[in-house]
Amino acid sequence: MRERVARAPVARLGTVTPDGRPHLVPCCFALARDRDVIYSAVDGKPKSTRQLRRLANVRANPATTLLVDHYAADWTQLWWVRLDGTGRVVEVVEEQRDALALLAAKYSQYRREPPAGPFLALDVTAWHRWPGP
Amino acid sequence: MRERVARAPVARLGTVTPDGRPHLVPCCFALARDRDVIYSAVDGKPKSTRQLRRLANVRANPATTLLVDHYAADWTQLWWVRLDGTGRVVEVVEEQRDALALLAAKYSQYRREPPAGPFLALDVTAWHRWPGP
Repeated sequence: MRERVARAPVARLGTVTPDGRPHLVPCCFALARDRDVIYSAVDGKPKSTRQLRRLANVRANPATTLLVDHYAADWTQLWWVRLDGTGRVVEVVEEQRDALALLAAKYSQYRREPPAGPFLALDVTAWHRWPGP
Repeated sequence: MRERVARAPVARLGTVTPDGRPHLVPCCFALARDRDVIYSAVDGKPKSTRQLRRLANVRANPATTLLVDHYAADWTQLWWVRLDGTGRVVEVVEEQRDALALLAAKYSQYRREPPAGPFLALDVTAWHRWPGP
């Protein structure tokens, strides 16, 4: 399960807006090697306020989830892994450096053009999967 | 934007749990032809209580979102469309029949093995897309 999550190039990040609505964005991410922490970056492209909403959301309500799933026309091959936990904006410089290193190790796009951040951390408290074990 | 959504084989559905956490599942879906309504089905496979949580969520808090996105290694090709609105369990028999017909028209898997339901409707109130127009 951990391997599948670590390798997936894209996942969907879910947060809750201050008025209680679900908010979803697709995101690139990296799983820390020895801890249950997921990092993602707000990258270098011009951002509207909408694309920063995830950061405002986790500051107001840190409940965050990340869904990694596999779709195939053969529905016997479907699977997903959902990581529930607590989101936070990475403030400590050392951890920002770690997050960038993990993302750059996974994505050549980030090696060519490192994201300026901010970085979002998801401290995972529960792993769910389907189909079950 | 409507065409991209209609054709996508899979999307991710976001709801909010009664205790205010985001909840995500991947789902197959169909867009109604002449209305801004998305239908999905809880299909015939054995379900744990977890997989029905989306239904309990929308009954408690109808705020629902559906994210359709495209991932590619060439990040200039990325796009997403997010549909925000109100979720509800389809109770009227005629609308259940419509939902099933739309899903079966889109998915051969549903033609071979029609989902028993229940069916979830998302009445879309706002379309968001990235990149912008």
